[in-house]
Amino acid sequence: MEVYLDNSATTKPYETVIEKMNDVMRSYYGNPSSAHSFGIKAEKILNDSRDTVARTINCGKEEIIFTSGGSESNNFIIKGFAKEGGNIITTPIEHPSVLNTFKELESQGVEIKILSVFKDGRINLEELEKAINKNTLLVSIMHVNNEIGTVQDIKSIGRIIKEKGGRTKFHIDGVQSYGKFNIDVKELNIDAFSASAHKIHGPRGVGFVYVKKGLIPKPLISGGGQERSFRSGTENLPGVVGFSEAARIIHQSMNENYNKVFNLKEYFIERLRDFEDVKINSPLNEKFSPYILNVSFIGIKGEVLLRALDGNGIYVSTGSACSAKDTKDSHVLRAICLKDSEIKGAIRFSFSEDNTKEEIDYVLHSLYSSLKFLRRGK
Amino acid sequence: MEVYLDNSATTKPYETVIEKMNDVMRSYYGNPSSAHSFGIKAEKILNDSRDTVARTINCGKEEIIFTSGGSESNNFIIKGFAKEGGNIITTPIEHPSVLNTFKELESQGVEIKILSVFKDGRINLEELEKAINKNTLLVSIMHVNNEIGTVQDIKSIGRIIKEKGGRTKFHIDGVQSYGKFNIDVKELNIDAFSASAHKIHGPRGVGFVYVKKGLIPKPLISGGGQERSFRSGTENLPGVVGFSEAARIIHQSMNENYNKVFNLKEYFIERLRDFEDVKINSPLNEKFSPYILNVSFIGIKGEVLLRALDGNGIYVSTGSACSAKDTKDSHVLRAICLKDSEIKGAIRFSFSEDNTKEEIDYVLHSLYSSLKFLRRGK
Ligand SMILES: Cc1ncc(COP(=O)(O)O)c(C=O)c1O
Ligand SMILES: Cc1ncc(COP(=O)(O)O)c(C=O)c1O
Repeated sequence: MEVYLDNSATTKPYETVIEKMNDVMRSYYGNPSSAHSFGIKAEKILNDSRDTVARTINCGKEEIIFTSGGSESNNFIIKGFAKEGGNIITTPIEHPSVLNTFKELESQGVEIKILSVFKDGRINLEELEKAINKNTLLVSIMHVNNEIGTVQDIKSIGRIIKEKGGRTKFHIDGVQSYGKFNIDVKELNIDAFSASAHKIHGPRGVGFVYVKKGLIPKPLISGGGQERSFRSGTENLPGVVGFSEAARIIHQSMNENYNKVFNLKEYFIERLRDFEDVKINSPLNEKFSPYILNVSFIGIKGEVLLRALDGNGIYVSTGSACSAKDTKDSHVLRAICLKDSEIKGAIRFSFSEDNTKEEIDYVLHSLYSSLKFLRRGK
Repeated sequence: MEVYLDNSATTKPYETVIEKMNDVMRSYYGNPSSAHSFGIKAEKILNDSRDTVARTINCGKEEIIFTSGGSESNNFIIKGFAKEGGNIITTPIEHPSVLNTFKELESQGVEIKILSVFKDGRINLEELEKAINKNTLLVSIMHVNNEIGTVQDIKSIGRIIKEKGGRTKFHIDGVQSYGKFNIDVKELNIDAFSASAHKIHGPRGVGFVYVKKGLIPKPLISGGGQERSFRSGTENLPGVVGFSEAARIIHQSMNENYNKVFNLKEYFIERLRDFEDVKINSPLNEKFSPYILNVSFIGIKGEVLLRALDGNGIYVSTGSACSAKDTKDSHVLRAICLKDSEIKGAIRFSFSEDNTKEEIDYVLHSLYSSLKFLRRGK
């Protein structure tokens, strides 16, 4: 049996996503920027896809800019709004594409402020309010954390930023929430929102960023002026069409999917009660996404357990495997003040709607015997 | 009959490119950065693709960085090497992803020098030599121009830069030459080389940049540290595999393709002798790529002729349609000092090895009758 529980890293594309991409590659290979009718057909498909995506977050289609993925979207918005002399605010549990971009900007004379987080990963709203001043250009906060699944209270955050009334822009890294949580950029007072197709059964190498009408972040990629000059480069039409198809499908069954993975996570956690020396880092409540279950197996090295599960065809991540292979400790687990042993023994199980209770049973069984073996004689 | 002669804008993907991408999407959807064996399989495919691509330009596979396309590659290298206080050099006939990046950097305190070009689009090598000084960080020059097909003498350019002996890096925008011309980055003294998959029957949304070992351009996209930290973001494995498959195929028959399009262009030009008021902007000699035929139809508006051909299922570009729909005059045709009427009446026919003599006959026939109609009564 093979069980893929690394859906926060990337997902299996939907079959119709692949089919639609094939259709575009075979029959609509014209350049949407070409003036001939074959290009105009391609442009129409591009606009239809843009429209489909825009509807999922309640924005206008001219507010959607397609990119090559979540990392580009985050870099574009943060570098695009930051300026020397101003300050920008974020949290210590962001994805590296946010945190490393902040560090880069710091070395270029932008003041950065990293808020503290509670043990559940949520920020302190009062601290945020105090941190924002008239020089604050941007607050960049992820909706759902990719390692432990913390869901930030973005509604309150958006309200605070708005009430401060300055020129501060509110950016959300929505890579782990898009297609899984309800997002209404108007209601939530969001100025910019990043998403990535491959996290919702779309193709790799394509993402989008919503940029509120009227805002003008500096482009990251200059050139031919595609995407309203915000993002140059020949449009990746097959990728965009695949993304919009994935977005369409996943939003159709968003609540259903949510309940399904919620039940899986609930079942998983319940059955973990039979295990010794286990700590759940992402409990089952409204502060955590049901799509992510992070568990510390105390006294065990995460990598070793990962490999044992791998031997049984089960694919998971260690706490820190959010990006390129990395042997450093997880900055997220560090930020929520886990003990060393809890950090070292952390495993992330991340679900999709395709996972089944039978798979979870198989994983629990494999976990049980792996742990027994690894802890033998101790 | 439908005739696609806009291959410099984008090309039809090879069938095996599509098939390989499908295979990756269905069976290798693991994240190459994941530690489990499903991720390691994906990583192996990534490395094999990198190796295939590296061989095509005679570099090591660790010198290939995959990107989202030619525009990103160009932006990355130019912004990555430029620094305040230094100067960077280019030509007036570059693609907008180079020229606009230069302009952006100029506004940030980088000195830019734009060389002049001869009527054939080639630069003056002596002028280049004089322009390079100890503060020159980068010379960025395209191999083959995308509008008129000028082939720069990159061998001599590379030699001049090397002989100057300073810290100047040599970057080539090879988007229109890769897969069509022999490129040996070692022999040519190239430090960085940009290419894009969709110009050689690969997928859109993927490119690469060769960066010579030891050089460390600043990344454009920071984050999880993929691509040796030069380009973060989850690797676009289907795109990369599609690119390497296209690279493999096109390099197998590179000479054959070259001769084929050479003969097509020769035939086309010969038959154009029967036409009145026609000027060939890209003659048939070693200074021009056979893949591009740029022709001015004097007294005619390029857009109008484009639309007339379009009505017959023939897809071409006007001189300026190198990027997002653009009504401005071509900066390339301006730089080679064409007259206004020649600029306005310019059409670019760009070939692929799929085009046939029958197609060219059909185009010539359609051109003849369209021109007759458009010039009626004049
Ligand atoms: C929260 C978060 N932000 C950003 C990214 C980066 O997205 P991408 O891999 O599409 O560049 C990821 C995933 O890698 C993520 O989980
Ligand atoms: C010479 C040249 N450079 C760069 C590019 C940009 O490549 P891409 O469209 O892949 O971003 C193009 C094509 O659009 C080109 O012709």
